[in-house]
Amino acid sequence: MAGSTFGNIFKMTTWGESHGEGLGVVIDGVPAGITVDTGFIQAMMDRRKPGNSKFSTPRSEADEIHILSGVFEDKTTGTPISMMVRNTSQRSKDYSEIASYYRPGHADYCFDEKYGFRDYRGGGRSSGRETLSRVAAGAVAKLFLKEQGININAYTRAIGPVSIDEAAFDQAEVFDNELCMPDKAAYEKAVEYLKECMANGDSAGGIIECVIDGVMPGLGEPVFDKLDAMLAHAIFSIGAVKGFEIGEGFNAASLQGSENNDEFCMKEGKVDKRTNHSGGILGGISDGSPIIFRAAVKPTPSISKMQRTVNKNGEEIEISVKGRHDPVIVPRAVVVVEAMAAMVIADAVLMNRCSKI
Amino acid sequence: MAGSTFGNIFKMTTWGESHGEGLGVVIDGVPAGITVDTGFIQAMMDRRKPGNSKFSTPRSEADEIHILSGVFEDKTTGTPISMMVRNTSQRSKDYSEIASYYRPGHADYCFDEKYGFRDYRGGGRSSGRETLSRVAAGAVAKLFLKEQGININAYTRAIGPVSIDEAAFDQAEVFDNELCMPDKAAYEKAVEYLKECMANGDSAGGIIECVIDGVMPGLGEPVFDKLDAMLAHAIFSIGAVKGFEIGEGFNAASLQGSENNDEFCMKEGKVDKRTNHSGGILGGISDGSPIIFRAAVKPTPSISKMQRTVNKNGEEIEISVKGRHDPVIVPRAVVVVEAMAAMVIADAVLMNRCSKI
Amino acid sequence: MAGSTFGNIFKMTTWGESHGEGLGVVIDGVPAGITVDTGFIQAMMDRRKPGNSKFSTPRSEADEIHILSGVFEDKTTGTPISMMVRNTSQRSKDYSEIASYYRPGHADYCFDEKYGFRDYRGGGRSSGRETLSRVAAGAVAKLFLKEQGININAYTRAIGPVSIDEAAFDQAEVFDNELCMPDKAAYEKAVEYLKECMANGDSAGGIIECVIDGVMPGLGEPVFDKLDAMLAHAIFSIGAVKGFEIGEGFNAASLQGSENNDEFCMKEGKVDKRTNHSGGILGGISDGSPIIFRAAVKPTPSISKMQRTVNKNGEEIEISVKGRHDPVIVPRAVVVVEAMAAMVIADAVLMNRCSKI
Amino acid sequence: MAGSTFGNIFKMTTWGESHGEGLGVVIDGVPAGITVDTGFIQAMMDRRKPGNSKFSTPRSEADEIHILSGVFEDKTTGTPISMMVRNTSQRSKDYSEIASYYRPGHADYCFDEKYGFRDYRGGGRSSGRETLSRVAAGAVAKLFLKEQGININAYTRAIGPVSIDEAAFDQAEVFDNELCMPDKAAYEKAVEYLKECMANGDSAGGIIECVIDGVMPGLGEPVFDKLDAMLAHAIFSIGAVKGFEIGEGFNAASLQGSENNDEFCMKEGKVDKRTNHSGGILGGISDGSPIIFRAAVKPTPSISKMQRTVNKNGEEIEISVKGRHDPVIVPRAVVVVEAMAAMVIADAVLMNRCSKI
Repeated sequence: MAGSTFGNIFKMTTWGESHGEGLGVVIDGVPAGITVDTGFIQAMMDRRKPGNSKFSTPRSEADEIHILSGVFEDKTTGTPISMMVRNTSQRSKDYSEIASYYRPGHADYCFDEKYGFRDYRGGGRSSGRETLSRVAAGAVAKLFLKEQGININAYTRAIGPVSIDEAAFDQAEVFDNELCMPDKAAYEKAVEYLKECMANGDSAGGIIECVIDGVMPGLGEPVFDKLDAMLAHAIFSIGAVKGFEIGEGFNAASLQGSENNDEFCMKEGKVDKRTNHSGGILGGISDGSPIIFRAAVKPTPSISKMQRTVNKNGEEIEISVKGRHDPVIVPRAVVVVEAMAAMVIADAVLMNRCSKI
Repeated sequence: MAGSTFGNIFKMTTWGESHGEGLGVVIDGVPAGITVDTGFIQAMMDRRKPGNSKFSTPRSEADEIHILSGVFEDKTTGTPISMMVRNTSQRSKDYSEIASYYRPGHADYCFDEKYGFRDYRGGGRSSGRETLSRVAAGAVAKLFLKEQGININAYTRAIGPVSIDEAAFDQAEVFDNELCMPDKAAYEKAVEYLKECMANGDSAGGIIECVIDGVMPGLGEPVFDKLDAMLAHAIFSIGAVKGFEIGEGFNAASLQGSENNDEFCMKEGKVDKRTNHSGGILGGISDGSPIIFRAAVKPTPSISKMQRTVNKNGEEIEISVKGRHDPVIVPRAVVVVEAMAAMVIADAVLMNRCSKI
Repeated sequence: MAGSTFGNIFKMTTWGESHGEGLGVVIDGVPAGITVDTGFIQAMMDRRKPGNSKFSTPRSEADEIHILSGVFEDKTTGTPISMMVRNTSQRSKDYSEIASYYRPGHADYCFDEKYGFRDYRGGGRSSGRETLSRVAAGAVAKLFLKEQGININAYTRAIGPVSIDEAAFDQAEVFDNELCMPDKAAYEKAVEYLKECMANGDSAGGIIECVIDGVMPGLGEPVFDKLDAMLAHAIFSIGAVKGFEIGEGFNAASLQGSENNDEFCMKEGKVDKRTNHSGGILGGISDGSPIIFRAAVKPTPSISKMQRTVNKNGEEIEISVKGRHDPVIVPRAVVVVEAMAAMVIADAVLMNRCSKI
Repeated sequence: MAGSTFGNIFKMTTWGESHGEGLGVVIDGVPAGITVDTGFIQAMMDRRKPGNSKFSTPRSEADEIHILSGVFEDKTTGTPISMMVRNTSQRSKDYSEIASYYRPGHADYCFDEKYGFRDYRGGGRSSGRETLSRVAAGAVAKLFLKEQGININAYTRAIGPVSIDEAAFDQAEVFDNELCMPDKAAYEKAVEYLKECMANGDSAGGIIECVIDGVMPGLGEPVFDKLDAMLAHAIFSIGAVKGFEIGEGFNAASLQGSENNDEFCMKEGKVDKRTNHSGGILGGISDGSPIIFRAAVKPTPSISKMQRTVNKNGEEIEISVKGRHDPVIVPRAVVVVEAMAAMVIADAVLMNRCSKI
């Protein structure tokens, strides 16, 4: 109810603050018998962790994941899987100042209004660090989905105004360059753009795209838990996301029916679609085509550039947000998007086991 | 679980098919003591019902709402409110043909894959007619929110390529013109565009914008039930929605932090923001500014233009979708967007009653 | 949240008051493909309806069930099944007096405290009439379970101090006598007891026992949704229930481990138990033996005998509860117990589909 | 869904196995601002921990609780509270033998059937050790309830055939004697009984009674989440519980209405009841009187006495369960009952905040 649980059957509950003892997640509803590859989970964690590039915070945290329950002799047992990461690089003194005022673009004011006070150290529960719990859970979901033949790949589609050229799409680049952009030329332009932002004490946003292959038709529950509605919920629960679209997305609004409809056809004896404007979901249910969606990520709100704001005494002041912040969080959020998508699809696969007698 | 329930505390469960006995909704968790204005609920229903304009289906259904429980002496009692509409304009024979094939852009194929068969009459449960249950529930939510000083207004921002001019914004037009566009000139252009679509046996999409005024700061639950994530889920659960964005939305991706951050200031002794790029939500919690979001609606998939598809025997065929279909559903969806937004905000108001001791 | 929904996957939401338009239920999560025998559902309704005997209220209500959605060509479609019964025998004037005071043993005072006021006509939502929605839903659950080879039979084990003799158990009597007691001699003694109660303007309680055959081992979810915990919740949600026990129940408290443990053995090549002290559930999970539980039902609180109470002005008064009341509700509650048990088992069967990869 | 979460608003998710890294709990929905007394939480843990008496297992585990999140400057922050206990006294080799067979009265067989295999070390997830997570969460619930003026006290009412004499009730004894029996004479008789059980390699059960004082009228949600139904669910989810009753409980079945009804009266200007046969709950809603319920606990299934059973090869064998087992778990379960009751009441208090406008 208080919002720290996500999912219906395959379900995670996360906990932890940026500067507390650690952060973690409990996943309940994981079917028994999945082979747990700890190395794979840690590799997912490493894709998210800070310090991977000059465009992420120089905080270096090991973010080592510990599995505390639910796995026996390398298999999931069907009981809850508890995982946690200990915080090791806490510098709470960096944050003592921000206790007194509201950072623009942050939830400081909102938390104070909601709860009467807040754990101000590093954003507390509203820190982006919270997402590491999601990545750990999503990694388990991906292990389950792999056994079902489903793969999820996200990447950076745009950094600020710099977008990839679809014609130049190169999957290898996603892991090769620090911005996770599948187009080397775009990556290089984005690097220039980010350097400029940093020089100005400013920050950048971007767009993440995600493709899910191998999804059988039939996933998603009408009418409120449509597969795209679940994905929208999941992706919008990631801190900095301001937009979500699937298939043609906002572009569909200006198309005509004959342009946007995907005609059905037969392919190798099976029903298929000639196009995929739908992004793999029709009427909220997977249609067997790849699922394709995009998320808009706002620029990091923590900037060293001077900004006006107010403090808790109701005085207007000027501030420069100090501390070790990412000039752009998009590349680190790519794996979080994958993780959240994996949670939704894993849950939908299980829910669909009950659709027929 | 099977997706027909929405909300946590203020919670609706809908039922019904396009061509069954009727459709309805049960709302549980409505606080006792709300004055129920049946006329207001029916007026919301009337904004959604077909036959209001030359751009909606000529089916004329009364869509008269009946309150069956939960209201006593014009007040909500705290027990579930059951409401229903009887179907009166059923012409099942119109649909007998579509039992045999899969309409492009529709969920026919997906339902068959999910459930093994489907109620093919008028789309059954996947019909847009399902949304009338949402409107009835949303009307009750609006009655509750009004007593809290919260108002929700949605309107058509674009039809196909025709967008309103913000400088010419005229709220009165939303109720005055049949497209719900708050800009008369844009409305007239949109009319021309729609006539052309209809002449070609084609259809149009559009964009709906929604503004929520009077929201206190503090609504929304970190981390998964952020207020924007709940709205995204709600809006994306409406059949034809393909995109959702809040505040700057997708545009935020290309802004810099200093452009996108809203500086806090003091106004009449209270904390306020100089701008509202956030769209009224920061870190998933309402910040006291108006909430502003947009939804992209795809063009109606039912078109009379010839399309290729396959039938249940696996044969490729050509079809023209007959029947009484809307060339554009955007204007009728405006009130559905309002209803879903009202459900989310009402729920968030109640959930927030438990945030402090 | 507000308590009108029961179940996780196979899930019902009920609505309606004793003297409103009617009462009903929406069942979501019913798998597609179950053959719906309307006659069977009505027969379940008829077992609950008043007027079946001289020991139930002489109100004669048809309690005719109408299926409004979710069934197409006699099969469940996987979409929500809405069912309702119209109220036809309303005599609200009988109840106008009780608006002003609190009946002993009833929830009048509690409702006023909780909601600020109440629908006082016939108990409103707290009327036993509410259970007809459960019976309709439970009938659908039983249809599903029959196809899985699971049968549920409840009966009256005791009326007041009169218990059946297990040695004289006769299943046919459950349907043959109006008290649903599977022992004719006990039935006859109970009749005498009830006549005496009625002569004194008093009422009686009793014990209902329920046996569930054909349950496969493995149902129930550790640790909070143990199968017996779900049954306890379900049965205790029936208005007048004051106790619930499974297998040896309260008797187990005074046994020793060697007496209460069931030894495992092999029977026709399968694991079996030599005894069934457990009542078919071990560690919260079905063990393959028949599930046996008992519920204690309090005497009907509505009695014509004079009682002291207070009115809404805080004055102490004396009352005699008038109206058409059952001197004992146990026989009518038997089918409600079956229905609730069916809901739990159907839900557990579906949940268990996700226990293994 | 998979059963490791309990509660609606005030909600816990537990994890951990007897012989894994540790066990823990995440509580979500705790209102911000509760003062957290760690000493109180540890004291609750200590009441449950083994080694407190000659009648509990001689395993000595520190069961030291660690708070990992959700508390800042000694106050709850409104974000999830994660707590854990590390396992320190693991002797997995004690259990290697039981991997191969099914212990009578245990869930071994059921887990194998449900999940395909099991973590056999010390019962894994089905170990009574799981309840320490509940106690930690329940302690936080009790801290919240204390601030609301609500107190919860449980004690041993019976051990085997030895019951307390209500006339001799002495609350101090609950903490003074190792069996938590509020009657010294009964305690001494129970000691003799238990010594005899142990001498025979056998075990005992008992009855726990719980009294909740200070509950305001109005808690509990009709119709399925009645306060007693929630308590029944909670208490029945504790491993060895086989029966639950409230107020008169099973005795009510043989009373007449005039005996079982509680007459209302005025006391110091407030509505009160002359008796409390209801056990503090009417129609599922608290009536302002103390809530009184009882739970029947079966004898510990682990006994050293020889028993017949089967092994995984389907062979009938004879076994004597070795290891460090409690001859009676009732005294250690007393605090678990308190904890579960506290979770239910805390949740009901929060849910009730939404009952009126």
